[in-house]
Amino acid sequence: MPERRTTIIAFSGEYDKLVAAFTIANGAAAAGDEVTVFFTFWGLSALRRDARTGPGGAGPRGGRLQRAMARALPRGTSKLPTSRFNLAGAGPRAMRAIMRTRGIADLDELIALAREQGVRLVACTTSMDILGLTAQDLIEPLEYAGVAGYLEHARDAGVNLFV
Amino acid sequence: MPERRTTIIAFSGEYDKLVAAFTIANGAAAAGDEVTVFFTFWGLSALRRDARTGPGGAGPRGGRLQRAMARALPRGTSKLPTSRFNLAGAGPRAMRAIMRTRGIADLDELIALAREQGVRLVACTTSMDILGLTAQDLIEPLEYAGVAGYLEHARDAGVNLFV
Amino acid sequence: MPERRTTIIAFSGEYDKLVAAFTIANGAAAAGDEVTVFFTFWGLSALRRDARTGPGGAGPRGGRLQRAMARALPRGTSKLPTSRFNLAGAGPRAMRAIMRTRGIADLDELIALAREQGVRLVACTTSMDILGLTAQDLIEPLEYAGVAGYLEHARDAGVNLFV
Repeated sequence: MPERRTTIIAFSGEYDKLVAAFTIANGAAAAGDEVTVFFTFWGLSALRRDARTGPGGAGPRGGRLQRAMARALPRGTSKLPTSRFNLAGAGPRAMRAIMRTRGIADLDELIALAREQGVRLVACTTSMDILGLTAQDLIEPLEYAGVAGYLEHARDAGVNLFV
Repeated sequence: MPERRTTIIAFSGEYDKLVAAFTIANGAAAAGDEVTVFFTFWGLSALRRDARTGPGGAGPRGGRLQRAMARALPRGTSKLPTSRFNLAGAGPRAMRAIMRTRGIADLDELIALAREQGVRLVACTTSMDILGLTAQDLIEPLEYAGVAGYLEHARDAGVNLFV
Repeated sequence: MPERRTTIIAFSGEYDKLVAAFTIANGAAAAGDEVTVFFTFWGLSALRRDARTGPGGAGPRGGRLQRAMARALPRGTSKLPTSRFNLAGAGPRAMRAIMRTRGIADLDELIALAREQGVRLVACTTSMDILGLTAQDLIEPLEYAGVAGYLEHARDAGVNLFV
């Protein structure tokens, strides 16, 4: 039986959308699919380390605009906005609190579970270049790929989503 | 001939995106597909009853944060924002007025047509839990499922969209 | 060998999402896929001519609301907002500047490359009607279709995305 594949492009970098993306990723992995989540653009902010890192401790690479972009980009899942009712960060805090109370896995737990289940987490190298992010800025281990790497997975996948 | 399937995840709960989603759903159903629309997160607001309902008339269930979330969430299609040019509700009103003038089916009509054509409308139970919504808060008849229910449909579908 | 197909619905009309959409479209076309990008709703703003055109030079057709909608809608790729950090247009300008500096093709170049590679650019006629846009308002050459045209492509495609 050919292995089934699921791919999700995590573009938006919003807490609620990533919860949906990883709920689907984990469900598909639990059902035996080979699952890949591609982090592009704002989605990469979910993968950022909390500490300021980078070559020589100088922070993100690139010119002035790239450094400004990298500074503006949230660091890690606890800083992500929600796509609706963000209310200067009150929305995501409320959502995390509700999920904790109701015993629903939060985004960090969903990502950890995805890793355990062998979901491949791939960072888009072109987006990293635009946003002034290097591999040192992101959590490990990750895979790195461009659009060709994405398509290689997506073309044989039954479920492909852009989130 | 195997039946074709189309699935759409209605995540965003924005008027314009739901018009696009149900236009596709109805087109696919008219072409003979088995179509399922999964309402998750903000998408559930399109399915809310107008009246305040719930067990004992006490409104949405859950703790203080869930009740606040449920209060903030729009009730029914006429309260949904647009994803662009919302302008405190003037955008969706203008869009509905234009569609009426041009003889284009509005969202309520699109959803009614979808039901007539046998499109399955499924509410995501995990999202309902997060948003403090119970079955009494939503229009009927609906189906209820978690991510496994979604994947069961999506894995054999030709078209899977996240809207 | 059956030809592979990729379809992308360009709904959002945001600079960053369209860069992602056309990066995927071009990658798939380079890999030999038949690729179609369907422009619906706000996505149509990327296809608008810069100059005020239309029958009799009178600007967009339709009633007062449609004309207001058409006036609010950006004209061409250089006026598109970004989905995050738009900052009254500073975000897209910064992103274009970064992409230029890093030698990454900007959206105009990506669209031009897509045309060269035979990617089909299709404008959704229902959306044009809602937004008060006529064929004269949009760049040429384009194809025009409704939802049936979309589904004809999507149902046999391996990758279908809603962006």
